[in-house]
Amino acid sequence: MLNLKFVDGLIPVIVQDSKSREVLMMGYANAEAIRLTKETGYAHYYSRSRKKLWKKGEESGHFQKVVTILIDCDEDCLIYFVEQQCAACHTGYVSCFYRTLDGSIVGTKVFDPEKVYGKKGH
Amino acid sequence: MLNLKFVDGLIPVIVQDSKSREVLMMGYANAEAIRLTKETGYAHYYSRSRKKLWKKGEESGHFQKVVTILIDCDEDCLIYFVEQQCAACHTGYVSCFYRTLDGSIVGTKVFDPEKVYGKKGH
Repeated sequence: MLNLKFVDGLIPVIVQDSKSREVLMMGYANAEAIRLTKETGYAHYYSRSRKKLWKKGEESGHFQKVVTILIDCDEDCLIYFVEQQCAACHTGYVSCFYRTLDGSIVGTKVFDPEKVYGKKGH
Repeated sequence: MLNLKFVDGLIPVIVQDSKSREVLMMGYANAEAIRLTKETGYAHYYSRSRKKLWKKGEESGHFQKVVTILIDCDEDCLIYFVEQQCAACHTGYVSCFYRTLDGSIVGTKVFDPEKVYGKKGH
């Protein structure tokens, strides 16, 4: 394994669908999240807002099976190539990047977040 | 334009080839870099190491024509969809993500960095 550069213990992770190549989300991982991702084959992250390790899909069931992990030239950013179950975004869209900068919707909504997450929210 | 969330004045930008959908690099932009990107149609960033605004390709000639800009659900990350001239990475590879986490080369090298950047480096 190469020498990862963490900032405040975290490294940004771009998440890309291994088949469609759509970028699904961006998350952050700490060393433990990367270790668990490699060990289990499922994407783990570190939530900066909740300050805890997080397995994607633990609440929604929308797990990400990690096919491969790429690292950039500076060794300060990763790509998880994943097989995404259902959708990546908590809003119900396939990708978190479902809008252009001027707010136009360009993504596809595939589930109702109220049904998946209930009233407790994301 | 939506309300972008900057951290220390910067927002991460994922750069994706608009045709191949390959993720080429990740950079950071400040408000001025985004304004110039929209105004000129070419990708601008803020270099954290050099602490200055930076037009991709200003040294190498490998400019990025920006086709569209996407924003994520949290409004704290962007995607520049680009038409990349030659290659994105200063190492000569098409993408900065040319290796797996264990160091295997998976990318394609398309130019010799010594010829493009000369002896002064990146």
